[in-house]
Amino acid sequence: MSAAVASADVVTSFIQALERRDLDAALALVTDDVEYDNVPMSKVHGPDGIRQVLEPFLGMCTAVEWVVHHQAATGDVVMNERTDRFELNGRWIAVSVAGLFVLRDGKIALWRDYFDQGQFNQSMAG
Amino acid sequence: MSAAVASADVVTSFIQALERRDLDAALALVTDDVEYDNVPMSKVHGPDGIRQVLEPFLGMCTAVEWVVHHQAATGDVVMNERTDRFELNGRWIAVSVAGLFVLRDGKIALWRDYFDQGQFNQSMAG
Repeated sequence: MSAAVASADVVTSFIQALERRDLDAALALVTDDVEYDNVPMSKVHGPDGIRQVLEPFLGMCTAVEWVVHHQAATGDVVMNERTDRFELNGRWIAVSVAGLFVLRDGKIALWRDYFDQGQFNQSMAG
Repeated sequence: MSAAVASADVVTSFIQALERRDLDAALALVTDDVEYDNVPMSKVHGPDGIRQVLEPFLGMCTAVEWVVHHQAATGDVVMNERTDRFELNGRWIAVSVAGLFVLRDGKIALWRDYFDQGQFNQSMAG
């Protein structure tokens, strides 16, 4: 298995864990010094940083689906184009996202999501 | 040369042509039915659509630099993380972008850029 395929598999497993809202499984796939950068919003470090951002949000969701439209991988770099969908209070919100994942030793060391803050806010407001 | 490497080379040549503000060279690398989607802003089709969006803007610029931080390619799919920099009226503006390029027969058939409209507007306003 090539490095690119192995890297893409880690990212796919990470996203599937987040869709199950299984943060423990997701955070087992990141490095201790992981950087998680929601580019227009905020940046955190470490598995605990990711947990503090995602746990309250995912806890409010009754379902999570991240639809991957395209994905590309070269060595330790994986990028994908997604629609991230969250069911909140009986309503689905959706965000168009392009994500970057850089791996180190088989774990995600950098996760950076690009999206439009305005679209996210609008979708949240309904 | 693998398909992924060939695809990435086309995207690199495309970006270099845009940095030179050589739209003719850039548009020689896209399909007749290319879709160019500035996700938070607008979508156009065809080489002429791209020209109508980029020509007035690039014409105002005295220099253009697109710094590629990461790039990944799988088959016909290329994605990159960039800082697109434009010198306008003696001042540099910068936009953080994640781009998707899908090729067909060696030409770019889909180009979709993800960025935060608010950041772009703020950088333009100075």
